[in-house]
Amino acid sequence: MTSSRETGPTLDPKYDAAGLITAVATDAATGEVLMLAHMNAEALAATMASGEATFWSRSRGRLWKKGETSGHVLRVVEARIDCDQDAVWLRVEPHGPACHTGARSCFYRRIKDGRLVADE
Amino acid sequence: MTSSRETGPTLDPKYDAAGLITAVATDAATGEVLMLAHMNAEALAATMASGEATFWSRSRGRLWKKGETSGHVLRVVEARIDCDQDAVWLRVEPHGPACHTGARSCFYRRIKDGRLVADE
Repeated sequence: MTSSRETGPTLDPKYDAAGLITAVATDAATGEVLMLAHMNAEALAATMASGEATFWSRSRGRLWKKGETSGHVLRVVEARIDCDQDAVWLRVEPHGPACHTGARSCFYRRIKDGRLVADE
Repeated sequence: MTSSRETGPTLDPKYDAAGLITAVATDAATGEVLMLAHMNAEALAATMASGEATFWSRSRGRLWKKGETSGHVLRVVEARIDCDQDAVWLRVEPHGPACHTGARSCFYRRIKDGRLVADE
């Protein structure tokens, strides 16, 4: 079953009860998943207008431009949306590590035999 | 600020109030983001045990192995988890289109000038 939201040209994000959609950022050059975060309508608009990934921080309860303090911004090369418009995929050019731990990607650990193995 | 959940070797997913974490699947060969979905503890365990991506369907309220009816399973090459353990990244080998619309990826539309442009 499809709908105009699923196939049409109209940007019509399906925000959840908290007014959010999920956003995933990948390195446009390598395809590596860098981070997952959330966006409200304002964050999505700011991202598209500025060309720099901007999210809604659920913990801080405010708009949050990635890298606003660290300088590690994510420059948006391309923004895509999924079929039911509740998730956005940003292909980005990262300016520095995406993770607050200093790792290039937040996904720096592999799940193996029920444990986590960090990248070298 | 970091914690053992963020840096340690223990798999300790941070499920939300509904018992879910977010999962993103990318094509292991191309890096393309194929789909986003959710997992509860049972879905994560089933994914790791079977090697095939299994999610929790919020709309159907049940465990859902991707491709269980279509045959378009996502064979897991590698599973990773992010710093705060509320998101999983599956690098997969897709057996057929990931999207129910027949598109290879659910993210078949680009956001451009406030509108959506479908891939050719």
